[in-house]
Amino acid sequence: MVIWSGLRKLCGRGHPSRMSGNFPEVAAKLAAIAQGFHARGWLLGTSGSLSAVVQREPLQLAMSPSGVDKGELRVDQMLAIDEQARIVNRDSGKPSDESLLHIRVVKERGAGAVLHTHSVWNTILSDLYAADGGVKIEGYEMLKGLQGVRTHEHSEWLPIVDNSQDMPSLAESIAQTLNEHKGAHGFLLRRHGLYSWGETLDEAKRHVEILEFLLETMGRTLHLRNAV
Amino acid sequence: MVIWSGLRKLCGRGHPSRMSGNFPEVAAKLAAIAQGFHARGWLLGTSGSLSAVVQREPLQLAMSPSGVDKGELRVDQMLAIDEQARIVNRDSGKPSDESLLHIRVVKERGAGAVLHTHSVWNTILSDLYAADGGVKIEGYEMLKGLQGVRTHEHSEWLPIVDNSQDMPSLAESIAQTLNEHKGAHGFLLRRHGLYSWGETLDEAKRHVEILEFLLETMGRTLHLRNAV
Amino acid sequence: MVIWSGLRKLCGRGHPSRMSGNFPEVAAKLAAIAQGFHARGWLLGTSGSLSAVVQREPLQLAMSPSGVDKGELRVDQMLAIDEQARIVNRDSGKPSDESLLHIRVVKERGAGAVLHTHSVWNTILSDLYAADGGVKIEGYEMLKGLQGVRTHEHSEWLPIVDNSQDMPSLAESIAQTLNEHKGAHGFLLRRHGLYSWGETLDEAKRHVEILEFLLETMGRTLHLRNAV
Amino acid sequence: MVIWSGLRKLCGRGHPSRMSGNFPEVAAKLAAIAQGFHARGWLLGTSGSLSAVVQREPLQLAMSPSGVDKGELRVDQMLAIDEQARIVNRDSGKPSDESLLHIRVVKERGAGAVLHTHSVWNTILSDLYAADGGVKIEGYEMLKGLQGVRTHEHSEWLPIVDNSQDMPSLAESIAQTLNEHKGAHGFLLRRHGLYSWGETLDEAKRHVEILEFLLETMGRTLHLRNAV
Repeated sequence: MVIWSGLRKLCGRGHPSRMSGNFPEVAAKLAAIAQGFHARGWLLGTSGSLSAVVQREPLQLAMSPSGVDKGELRVDQMLAIDEQARIVNRDSGKPSDESLLHIRVVKERGAGAVLHTHSVWNTILSDLYAADGGVKIEGYEMLKGLQGVRTHEHSEWLPIVDNSQDMPSLAESIAQTLNEHKGAHGFLLRRHGLYSWGETLDEAKRHVEILEFLLETMGRTLHLRNAV
Repeated sequence: MVIWSGLRKLCGRGHPSRMSGNFPEVAAKLAAIAQGFHARGWLLGTSGSLSAVVQREPLQLAMSPSGVDKGELRVDQMLAIDEQARIVNRDSGKPSDESLLHIRVVKERGAGAVLHTHSVWNTILSDLYAADGGVKIEGYEMLKGLQGVRTHEHSEWLPIVDNSQDMPSLAESIAQTLNEHKGAHGFLLRRHGLYSWGETLDEAKRHVEILEFLLETMGRTLHLRNAV
Repeated sequence: MVIWSGLRKLCGRGHPSRMSGNFPEVAAKLAAIAQGFHARGWLLGTSGSLSAVVQREPLQLAMSPSGVDKGELRVDQMLAIDEQARIVNRDSGKPSDESLLHIRVVKERGAGAVLHTHSVWNTILSDLYAADGGVKIEGYEMLKGLQGVRTHEHSEWLPIVDNSQDMPSLAESIAQTLNEHKGAHGFLLRRHGLYSWGETLDEAKRHVEILEFLLETMGRTLHLRNAV
Repeated sequence: MVIWSGLRKLCGRGHPSRMSGNFPEVAAKLAAIAQGFHARGWLLGTSGSLSAVVQREPLQLAMSPSGVDKGELRVDQMLAIDEQARIVNRDSGKPSDESLLHIRVVKERGAGAVLHTHSVWNTILSDLYAADGGVKIEGYEMLKGLQGVRTHEHSEWLPIVDNSQDMPSLAESIAQTLNEHKGAHGFLLRRHGLYSWGETLDEAKRHVEILEFLLETMGRTLHLRNAV
């Protein structure tokens, strides 16, 4: 309800001529995903960010704004940004600090959507395995839900990148990591959170759910080591 | 809302003459269960599958489609399949990879419904007890909710079957396991998930809730061993 | 919605002359509590039971029926029972197996409502502390929410009673336990669940939430012993 | 629904001339936050309290009443209190026992809203680190959501104050603690709960979500120490 009521208002303002026709639809879907992830505790305290490509040439992303409660995110708060992370659909608002990271993932992977969550388990494992440079996840049926994976006998490497507040530099580190790990479906920022993506928003959501599930499963399994 | 709004559309297409009269009702119930289980984190990332018999002779099952977000499963996406897992109510769509397993459980147990979940705790225990070939659950009042069990002084053996992507072969392993353990109300696929079933969909749902509860209880109890 | 829609139907059938005037209101409240507790995972698999006194002389309780999904409990399924646990408002239906236990608690404590939950944590602690005969809970601010408790410097003894399928015998054990522990606000049945009660249904609900919270807190604290 | 339906009634009674004009709006927002936090298990058993400043001179707070189920808190139950915690908008009702603590936080910090939660994790860590006098939280990206924090390389000290039922004395201890730790965004009462605040109600809610997230993350991390 909250989501759709904002659509009419949204369509009537901003810079419509520079916005992709499917922006309202994408924005509504992003808001719905944000509410669901917030309910699961993956976007608490205005953390995390969500984006989806609405146009490729020139690049335009629908992007969650900075500092907004993700449980109450409204469509009319959604931003459209260009590839320099400048807002193109409104005269006010502030895109997420990490917009440059989203844009970089889109470019490196050709992704259609990028989702970034802060869950308890992704935070814990991003620190626990930092010295290894990543988390190896293998042998789980759940892996089959990742794009291109056909069997549980898959070994997924989820790289861990050191956290930083220098976004251009962090974007470079991420680009390098993505190039070193062509098969990765996501990465962790240390003590920060998870990034995943997909060709579509549905696929990106699926990837986040799968990776969050597997990180929780691995974390709880560590508790039980030597218990049986 | 989502569930019922699809009914009219559903009834007006596909191959109605080959569909059981109660397909719409069963499909709606499956979708509602899917949404509830997804909210509990038991069907994340499009994982898991749900089915219910709509006709015995010839066999016809209402079945969740492959690759669909279980939190948004709509009635008009539900498939009717025959005993070779061929779709009989639509010209498009793809049944779950594991349809053959559902069909086999229906035949071996005479079940009216089969539900398959991927929870964190069933995944963990399916691996932790794999070398034992199963999980012994005994002495819990909750066991009384399993069909035919009259006392907490019951010992339930939940067999663990090795995971595989070869569905016909896996179906055989499951059939053999079910024959060896006539009293079992479910089984685990290693690092994969739980299957349970019931004479009715209500009974199958009850069995899943009970087994998920008991697996979580046992997993958390292991944490506390030697703690007191 | 589900709850209130059943009221009209309910009022028009059964044995109205033998039913207390506030039965519909109490039944609706019990159904709402059942749905909420089921969502928290405290009444999975049709487990648990809920009751409230609708009349004292002769005694009459509104009671949840046996074998019903507590997440979908409807007002028109609610039973009115007398002090022998006989149904007085309908010609069909089956009261919870544990109706006699509810009735006994009502008599021993003068309670106006009795709620029985099966949570993961109450199940675990009911077993872990069984040899001690109970769980001592002390020093928590949360205890102040228990009726008559004025300070966190309170020591609550939550007795543990061995589980049994012999209801009349179990009712006697419970009565004896309640007499030995006059100050107890609840008790645990071993590997089974929690009973708590209150003068009103609101108080009983408050007591359950408090005891469930404290049992979870104590269980998780045990995990951390020696960790710091 | 519940929230807004109470507004008309509310506005028509009490002592409107002494109430700030934005009381209804603030009360509705407090009720919505209470329902959300209750769903997360942070306000079980009528525990916790919520307030927001509606007027500075003389001071007036919208405050949750004592002993009310936070999952069903209605706007028409909300109290307006003055700086001696006297009710100014109704002839009946009882403010939370801890109103004096809220008022003190408002004065010491110039806060516009104060939220107090009882979560499992804040209760556990308030005891585990009591001997240290506080919990040090550092190096988490999530810290950036706290007002004035610009980098994850921040060290937040969350002081722990001994619990007490003597509210004026406890208010003094808190004032002293807040003066000693000018940068703190919250504090813990031992075996009791968390207080946090913000310039606005949105900021206070954000702070609670962040601190609850970090306390859970730290508690679960302790479980894993030495596990890898």
